[in-house]
Amino acid sequence: MGEVKVIGHTGSLFCTRIEWALKIKGVEYEYLQEDLMNKSPILLKYNPVHKKVPVVVDGEKPIAESLVILEYIDETWKHNPLLPQDPHERALARFWAKFADDKCLIGAFEAFWKQGEEKEKAIESAVESFAFLEKEIKGKKFFSGEQIGYLDIVMGWIPHWLNVMEEVGGMKLIDAENFPALHEWTQSFIEIPIIKQVLPPRMLSLAANNQ
Amino acid sequence: MGEVKVIGHTGSLFCTRIEWALKIKGVEYEYLQEDLMNKSPILLKYNPVHKKVPVVVDGEKPIAESLVILEYIDETWKHNPLLPQDPHERALARFWAKFADDKCLIGAFEAFWKQGEEKEKAIESAVESFAFLEKEIKGKKFFSGEQIGYLDIVMGWIPHWLNVMEEVGGMKLIDAENFPALHEWTQSFIEIPIIKQVLPPRMLSLAANNQ
Repeated sequence: MGEVKVIGHTGSLFCTRIEWALKIKGVEYEYLQEDLMNKSPILLKYNPVHKKVPVVVDGEKPIAESLVILEYIDETWKHNPLLPQDPHERALARFWAKFADDKCLIGAFEAFWKQGEEKEKAIESAVESFAFLEKEIKGKKFFSGEQIGYLDIVMGWIPHWLNVMEEVGGMKLIDAENFPALHEWTQSFIEIPIIKQVLPPRMLSLAANNQ
Repeated sequence: MGEVKVIGHTGSLFCTRIEWALKIKGVEYEYLQEDLMNKSPILLKYNPVHKKVPVVVDGEKPIAESLVILEYIDETWKHNPLLPQDPHERALARFWAKFADDKCLIGAFEAFWKQGEEKEKAIESAVESFAFLEKEIKGKKFFSGEQIGYLDIVMGWIPHWLNVMEEVGGMKLIDAENFPALHEWTQSFIEIPIIKQVLPPRMLSLAANNQ
């Protein structure tokens, strides 16, 4: 196994996923902090298509796209598995990961950015999407069961970044009253030492994800 | 292994992916043709989140989202593998699949729908995206090597549906002169009996993907 590098940015929720996964696996890595306003030759070399963080470089092999990287990490270092073993459970995890990214994350960003009537509509739509997650997490400690896994990592932006978005955007998408199970999950998740240790200062979190 | 059902629509490029994969694996399935204007109780039961085709029901286990279904098929029936075995090659296949869906497919639809100056911009942007695929396929017979695999199946809308979009939309995104390798691939791909056999009549193809 070659040396592992993560090209990332501290405030990026997509990069945090990668650091969490590597820490769960106990893989050591060098973190190359990217200046997103002045992208480095190494980023342009290893992700010439999108020119975005995160990129993992394993030896000389680059991998981009955070969900793709998570699968790579899980297939390369097989201990402490992130995805379930059963094909149908794996499919469900991938389904909800895509749903959370396509509907909840983008929905939350839209609710954050938009104004007036459009904001109201975006909030309503995002809340509808989060309701599916509430149903999914109900009765479980973590999305992946008793221990955190792939899906918890993918949803890991909710406790920190969603909170920042809600505060700065003057809105509430998941309150404790209407989303008790999701709310409880955010509390349990964020208290895990390995999770807490990678979270950025709140100030950085919005800037880095609005590239 | 229970009985396999595919809830789909003949004209949908996302459904065709699933049929190709099952045929490559030699898995028999029952095809439930969905009326997209009047969705069936079985579709609403098995894909309550998106209410979209394709859905595969394996025994009583439903799986939705075409890329997720392809991974499920590959993990459940392991012969004639669709994805490569090496983790880095798997990551590259997943990366390009996402790129093709997010950039080329959506780009082609935008170029198809938009009008005037917006259409020109959309065409330019789509052509830039296809240029990455041209670079990827150059020097190879198929995206997956000597035999078709996951990535060829994912790109499989190009020979048929892109052609229909180009014709109806009055535009040309990948001509033989500027995209010789991609063009050659479309010819080789579409001539494979298992591929040809599932392609819908041209008339159906646009209607079903504009839900």
